[in-house]
Amino acid sequence: MLNMEKLYDAAKVLSSTVRKTDLIHSQALSNDCEVYIKSENLQVTGSFKVRGASYKIANLTDEEKSHGVIACSAGNHAQGVALAAKKYGIDATICIPAGAPMSKVAATRSYGANVVLVKGVYDDAYAKAVELQKEKNLTFVHPFDDEDVIAGQGTIGLEIIDQLPDVDAVIVPIGGGGLISGVAYAIKHLKPSCKVYGVQAAGAPSMYNSINHHAIETLDNVSTIADGIAVKKPGELTFDCCTKYVDEIITVTDDEIATAILTLMEKQKMISEGAGATTVAAVLFNKLNLAGKKVVCVVSGGNIDVNTLSRVINKGLAKAGRLVEFTTEILDKPGQLSKLLSVISDCGANVMSINHDRNHPDTPVGKCLVDLVLETEDTAHVERLKDTLKSNGYIVLK
Amino acid sequence: MLNMEKLYDAAKVLSSTVRKTDLIHSQALSNDCEVYIKSENLQVTGSFKVRGASYKIANLTDEEKSHGVIACSAGNHAQGVALAAKKYGIDATICIPAGAPMSKVAATRSYGANVVLVKGVYDDAYAKAVELQKEKNLTFVHPFDDEDVIAGQGTIGLEIIDQLPDVDAVIVPIGGGGLISGVAYAIKHLKPSCKVYGVQAAGAPSMYNSINHHAIETLDNVSTIADGIAVKKPGELTFDCCTKYVDEIITVTDDEIATAILTLMEKQKMISEGAGATTVAAVLFNKLNLAGKKVVCVVSGGNIDVNTLSRVINKGLAKAGRLVEFTTEILDKPGQLSKLLSVISDCGANVMSINHDRNHPDTPVGKCLVDLVLETEDTAHVERLKDTLKSNGYIVLK
Repeated sequence: MLNMEKLYDAAKVLSSTVRKTDLIHSQALSNDCEVYIKSENLQVTGSFKVRGASYKIANLTDEEKSHGVIACSAGNHAQGVALAAKKYGIDATICIPAGAPMSKVAATRSYGANVVLVKGVYDDAYAKAVELQKEKNLTFVHPFDDEDVIAGQGTIGLEIIDQLPDVDAVIVPIGGGGLISGVAYAIKHLKPSCKVYGVQAAGAPSMYNSINHHAIETLDNVSTIADGIAVKKPGELTFDCCTKYVDEIITVTDDEIATAILTLMEKQKMISEGAGATTVAAVLFNKLNLAGKKVVCVVSGGNIDVNTLSRVINKGLAKAGRLVEFTTEILDKPGQLSKLLSVISDCGANVMSINHDRNHPDTPVGKCLVDLVLETEDTAHVERLKDTLKSNGYIVLK
Repeated sequence: MLNMEKLYDAAKVLSSTVRKTDLIHSQALSNDCEVYIKSENLQVTGSFKVRGASYKIANLTDEEKSHGVIACSAGNHAQGVALAAKKYGIDATICIPAGAPMSKVAATRSYGANVVLVKGVYDDAYAKAVELQKEKNLTFVHPFDDEDVIAGQGTIGLEIIDQLPDVDAVIVPIGGGGLISGVAYAIKHLKPSCKVYGVQAAGAPSMYNSINHHAIETLDNVSTIADGIAVKKPGELTFDCCTKYVDEIITVTDDEIATAILTLMEKQKMISEGAGATTVAAVLFNKLNLAGKKVVCVVSGGNIDVNTLSRVINKGLAKAGRLVEFTTEILDKPGQLSKLLSVISDCGANVMSINHDRNHPDTPVGKCLVDLVLETEDTAHVERLKDTLKSNGYIVLK
């Protein structure tokens, strides 16, 4: 049964394997409230998942340990279980759907786990894991619906109360609900006046729907850049914990998450994955009533593909008007491109890339298309720039 | 005069304005040595510079405070002085060369400083700052060649010894030398057996040359992506400290720095600017004899432009063979592009972007050029892919 003794025991057991991550005050995020970041993205393996997995494995019997563990995950749970198993010197088998990012497979292997790549999607990998578990008498480590796992994640709540005793609110991402269940349990037992808020991606609102409808619901499909919390169905234990201990659950959109990822990079110098940035998105887009409060955002992980990150950066810059892409037309004669560029430079915009195409089938004879990517100050600057171009006789095509 | 009392006093004074940044063990960087990161990129203002600036300003007389301070910088020093002045409620004027990144000017203004944008380069901004200083009787806050500034930066050395008493070596970036002077002074007084190594960018080796030639030298020009340490001439105090307390200085190339920035992002989930990543580059590229040692890399700052970061990511991925760009030719008839893509997909590469140009002037009639950007595993995978394409009759153009 989940109780505070179990959480304190987890904290003791984990002290040798996981980091007590820093709680960092954020000047940039603090406007009408004081915002602190619980930096689980700087945890070993790059996410909080190693806490629950380690505590689960630590509590196995010697016989269970001798058989080894199995898990199914394409992400943070895979790495958490792999590292925890390595620390305790036991075998770990991880079933991963074959399309998973190469970097995550490599990271899981680097901790010594036996990776089984399974053709298909998550459900196929899960079926394979269940099959292997029975065949080899392994212990299945569930990613969230398990008391030991929840107790392990709950140690984050103990640390928050220790690091900021006068905290007023804690914001936690929700996928299956393991993290928030442990954190909310700890916070509400140590400081009942502290609010605990959950955040889900708008494209995967399984716990949000379930709590609002007072019964566990399963989504047909999920779609979000926050892959770490793209879960179709909450757990039973976690649904119960959320019902009892969580004050409110809200959702954030992928655009809001992308802005939060970019803000964390630029202002806090941290990489966050989509799931981790949801809590910061909740603050940035004023989803909760936090004025005058001391607020902790749990940034749960940092395992984001760098290619995805590149796209998030460009999308975020474009949205803030700090990058603009458009096409214009110039006459196909010498000096015309230079004339265009001097208009742009007089407006204070910097050219990031330029593509000059005189052969495009849509181009009228005697003209060239020019694709431009420019660095700008903000959306107002983009408007001024476009107006200036138009008043100089250029057309601006999207 | 610099002495340990001054450093301890600085630590006391700074306790209310700066963060005691976390010392983070890096599993990814620890191969034959144990590597710890002193995360000054997570410092307020995103760099260590706020330490020295705050201590300097704290020590001003009331009369000096009433006049205010002035500094010249396009980067971290500007933000450090601006924030420190704000904390002490005094006026700060910062001269910045007009071409500086928009984000840094905005950050400096956000701390309440009076920003003077000066046409020209750093030297012009410096001349303007000297002029304003005399005219308005302001105190000039030097970025490195000042005892109070050095003592402020030295508090990092005190923290390292406190956080890792059995440290064997500390690696520190060198620009003007303020940071390493303070850190080396502290380390060598508290634990003389601990090595202190300095790292410079190969494109700006002013202290490296000066120490090797036993006299201060001035570089004609500097060129490196590590803009925070692109300094033409060391200070007198800092040259003296490096001579006395630093064991060895080495240099790293821009390519090595870019790889280190990418490694810190992917493995440590941290944004580092070029200067900050030099110490990690020194470890990654085995520039020092560190086997079996406990090593601290000071990652001095994280203020890097996100556009620059995007380029570093792509360059780093390309270098590691995880991204490949090339052009090939296909016949200009239906089904040819799909055939090409199926060869690529059978090789296990993912298409990131594709540009299909049938009108390029160099293209033979009846053929199309296809520009491809693909995600790959490593350089061996790239070679296998190219070989497969060639054996299927495709040409591979750079």
